[in-house]
Amino acid sequence: MVRWEPNARGRLGQAAFELFVERGFEQVTVAEIAERAGLTERTFFRYFADKREVLFAGADGFQELFVSGVGGAPDSAAPIDAVAGALYGAAALFAAHEDGVRRRAAIIAAHPDLRERELIKLATVAAAVADALRGRGVGDPAASLAAEAGLAVFRIAFTSWIGAPEGPGLAQLISESLDELRAVAAGK
Amino acid sequence: MVRWEPNARGRLGQAAFELFVERGFEQVTVAEIAERAGLTERTFFRYFADKREVLFAGADGFQELFVSGVGGAPDSAAPIDAVAGALYGAAALFAAHEDGVRRRAAIIAAHPDLRERELIKLATVAAAVADALRGRGVGDPAASLAAEAGLAVFRIAFTSWIGAPEGPGLAQLISESLDELRAVAAGK
Repeated sequence: MVRWEPNARGRLGQAAFELFVERGFEQVTVAEIAERAGLTERTFFRYFADKREVLFAGADGFQELFVSGVGGAPDSAAPIDAVAGALYGAAALFAAHEDGVRRRAAIIAAHPDLRERELIKLATVAAAVADALRGRGVGDPAASLAAEAGLAVFRIAFTSWIGAPEGPGLAQLISESLDELRAVAAGK
Repeated sequence: MVRWEPNARGRLGQAAFELFVERGFEQVTVAEIAERAGLTERTFFRYFADKREVLFAGADGFQELFVSGVGGAPDSAAPIDAVAGALYGAAALFAAHEDGVRRRAAIIAAHPDLRERELIKLATVAAAVADALRGRGVGDPAASLAAEAGLAVFRIAFTSWIGAPEGPGLAQLISESLDELRAVAAGK
């Protein structure tokens, strides 16, 4: 019989993040994560395929946030503005969970294979955003370009935000980065 | 004593591509590639770490092509125009080796892990292009944005070119994609 553990997923995630920061991602075992969370390894594997998955378990939610942001834009919004709205939505959520987001970013930045996984995740999100734009009647290549450019804006603003904890907020950096994209594309 | 084999690298690459197309990437062994090329496995491993590397051995040259394209633009060129020049340079080279480029693209498209490797390669190229722009005195985030947007333009035009062998040329598709980027960024 499986014993129900209250908020097992959240406890495992919290324990894993703490251990990754304390000891480095490579050094941490699933057994240690489970122990820190006061749970069994078996419980861990009910929620995550491996320790790396703890870092990427939120990826579906992240993608859904972008896609629903695009879908929720007014019909009259230009493609890039629909994408911009989704970026601001993500920025608000990130700002509300700033400590966790920064901790996760630091763990990922320290490991080339995690950086690659993150890059692949962002490419998947860009493809989903392009699909959402097509769903709004945007043709190609405009849909792909707005999605790819929007994700590039997000990645660049996010990197800058992570690099300067005392600097401007993420939404502000996204706004500046969007302005810069307009200027760059216009050949300025 | 190592026997010198004329154009061993080229023969191995040619043999590998033929076999990948004939039999599928997964099914081909290094022994078969060497045999088809009339060389030994030992010779293969003097040039390539594994069979995957045959597909990505040109990556450094590809990156160098973009970087030198950006560096060779007139001082007065706007960042996006310096990047555009590099894209057209790459398009000319690809058009000159169209059969090989299409064959390679088909092999990569059929394998998720090769697609991921390609994605990571393009991200590395974007970072190198951004560095080349910084070398021209372009600040951030303009350098990163011009590089990322430029590579997005290239990726989208390239995908469209690969998908329609009888369609417009790659340079034409890049030009259209750049126009579309301008329109999208301007909120059209």
